Amino acid sequence: MAKINPDRLLADLSHLRTFGAEGSGVVRLALSAIDIEARHWLAGRMDEAGLDAAIDGVGTVFGRSRQPSPAVVIGSHTDTQPSGGWLDGAMGVIYGLEIARAFAESQRERDLAIDVASWMDEEGTFSSYVGSRVFSGEDPAEAIANARNRDGVTLGEALTRAGFAGRPLARLEHGRHAAYLEAHIEQGGRLESAGKRIGVVSSIVGIRDMRIIFLGQRNHAGTTPMPLRRDAGMALIAFAHRLDEVFRAIAGPETVWTIGRMELDPGSTSVVPGRAEMLLQYRDGDAARLNRLSERLRSLVNETDSAGPVRVSLSPFDAPVAPAEMDAGLQGQIAAAAERHAPGQWIAMPSGAGHDAQIIAPHLPSAMLFVPSIAGISHDFAEDTKEADIALGCQVMADAAASIIRAARG
Amino acid sequence: MAKINPDRLLADLSHLRTFGAEGSGVVRLALSAIDIEARHWLAGRMDEAGLDAAIDGVGTVFGRSRQPSPAVVIGSHTDTQPSGGWLDGAMGVIYGLEIARAFAESQRERDLAIDVASWMDEEGTFSSYVGSRVFSGEDPAEAIANARNRDGVTLGEALTRAGFAGRPLARLEHGRHAAYLEAHIEQGGRLESAGKRIGVVSSIVGIRDMRIIFLGQRNHAGTTPMPLRRDAGMALIAFAHRLDEVFRAIAGPETVWTIGRMELDPGSTSVVPGRAEMLLQYRDGDAARLNRLSERLRSLVNETDSAGPVRVSLSPFDAPVAPAEMDAGLQGQIAAAAERHAPGQWIAMPSGAGHDAQIIAPHLPSAMLFVPSIAGISHDFAEDTKEADIALGCQVMADAAASIIRAARG
Repeated sequence: MAKINPDRLLADLSHLRTFGAEGSGVVRLALSAIDIEARHWLAGRMDEAGLDAAIDGVGTVFGRSRQPSPAVVIGSHTDTQPSGGWLDGAMGVIYGLEIARAFAESQRERDLAIDVASWMDEEGTFSSYVGSRVFSGEDPAEAIANARNRDGVTLGEALTRAGFAGRPLARLEHGRHAAYLEAHIEQGGRLESAGKRIGVVSSIVGIRDMRIIFLGQRNHAGTTPMPLRRDAGMALIAFAHRLDEVFRAIAGPETVWTIGRMELDPGSTSVVPGRAEMLLQYRDGDAARLNRLSERLRSLVNETDSAGPVRVSLSPFDAPVAPAEMDAGLQGQIAAAAERHAPGQWIAMPSGAGHDAQIIAPHLPSAMLFVPSIAGISHDFAEDTKEADIALGCQVMADAAASIIRAARG
Repeated sequence: MAKINPDRLLADLSHLRTFGAEGSGVVRLALSAIDIEARHWLAGRMDEAGLDAAIDGVGTVFGRSRQPSPAVVIGSHTDTQPSGGWLDGAMGVIYGLEIARAFAESQRERDLAIDVASWMDEEGTFSSYVGSRVFSGEDPAEAIANARNRDGVTLGEALTRAGFAGRPLARLEHGRHAAYLEAHIEQGGRLESAGKRIGVVSSIVGIRDMRIIFLGQRNHAGTTPMPLRRDAGMALIAFAHRLDEVFRAIAGPETVWTIGRMELDPGSTSVVPGRAEMLLQYRDGDAARLNRLSERLRSLVNETDSAGPVRVSLSPFDAPVAPAEMDAGLQGQIAAAAERHAPGQWIAMPSGAGHDAQIIAPHLPSAMLFVPSIAGISHDFAEDTKEADIALGCQVMADAAASIIRAARG
């Protein structure tokens, strides 16, 4: 079987880390200048690996194999959170690159087709999962419409400035693509606390992102008596406190919810806020429970709005993502490869984080592999994984990919 | 007695409003380009009124009368909140200008000395009340130290850029200054709801501005189970909710408290906030109650910090302002003038808002006059006062100033 080259894998990861490096972390927001630079570098590395590489019309970097069908697509994303870690997304992309190279060097695997992808904007700087959504068949005009970063720049403008707008799109080829594989750091502490080295992902949670707006009356903070105030900020606090109780009562063991942003307007120490806004995200692997959480949220918004004196409204902040089951056959291939290389050191587990695999799974059999996150930390400069675990994960995925292609050939 | 000229008063107010006009409101933050322009215009108008006008070393515009001692200082401020109204502060300054002009035109009052001031940064863009603090004797180096706006520009840098740094300072002259008078819109709804036209201010509330910081652990919003989180934002919400209960229990009828700003870091929808911050302001006319509120706040911070899992700390955000009694004799002079011009249409009342008069009162006998705010609105573009009330307030203050100077001459 093809052997991956751990030094080459780690060298590419280390080089990719230099694009946007800040301390031990990385700041590489989708379509920032440094992200665009990293995409060009990545396309170059794909070319050197013998792939037909291109950056597509929505900024996805796609390296297409010249080998015959069927092909396995291996990918993830190279954009980061505003303060991201060096492995999140990047590792899964470089796994694909390394596996394509290892196959090309292998007598037995040189004719197995591996396509490699770095999907645009997994982290949602403009709109989450744009690259994998367009790959899966979404109209790019629809994916781009209304997508806008925090500075108000639209995705369309950013793609035009980068020179990507209007290019051909990397799209799912149904006759050719047999499976999608994605490796990722776990981003939690289960593997580490269980003393395991590989996670075979069973399902990916669904996600709802909501914006809740409170409209009161801006006024002077000294001269407006407490009973006469319509304080949007205090309404937000009371609402958020109540929401936490309501969600706790109906949450399952895997349910999580997060208020990631709260803003008061005008944000001045001497002014009663007239407007407040919060972003709420909740996740669960169970679609029915997600719906129950949404229903209770909507009720609470309506009750609070009716009770007054502050108006409250609810709207989606990002497109909902449905929970996704991973393909059972592919899970079996990854588990078998894990058992060969690290017997007894792997477990099946759900993914609490969203991934591009979730977008692609309804359209192409998909599966994921996790490696441990040290101390469970991610979306943080301190994110890290042991080098031996990074190398092991890549070898397991290489073996699984080879088996999957051979099985698809029949 | 000298008659003020209502048309000239309103014309100057209307012109001042054009500096930083946005819709019906004004954005004229201290030492912004437009504020500097307004200060130069104001100094020019003072010169035309026969005053020796200068912008001083901390940016205060001061017009000194050429008439013999004793002098009454009439002032307020021309800087605004981030979204301010057209009268807040501006009205009190233009009253001084108009009264100086009316006296100069009056046979009987032409030798009465009125100094006119627009104090630097009443609204605290850098640090509240800098101008009146320095006038009252504070070391300007101390007033400037650590003062910084939200963009990180220091007050020292801003004064240097404006060309004001190092200029002579407008200072209280004990042999010459007999009293400080300040007129202001009420910024609340008491006068309007009582059907009165003039408020004679009895005391000004004290203010405490605090910053509360919550330090948890930033982490991935999907993979970090609820029981393992150290969510700084949820800690802020629980704290703010509890604080509201605690303050409500010990508040007096005039106590007000406001959370004017809340911020989560990194502020991303998919990241558990690792840091959160809130600004809390509370006001009361009773120094003992202010101290009780501070003690309970400190206890709540300590309890929450000890309980964990998020660390909580408390620090002053701005210098505390002590409650200030207005001078009884001056109140009597204003009340007598109000009764002459609007019999039965004035009341004595406390000020819930802070004013430069509060800073000056411990050093020079001070008093304030309020005119009604339409619908009680201020610190908002919608802020307004009837023209007849603006004119009445200026005439009452002119009469009071004349009486005060004559009484001081003995």
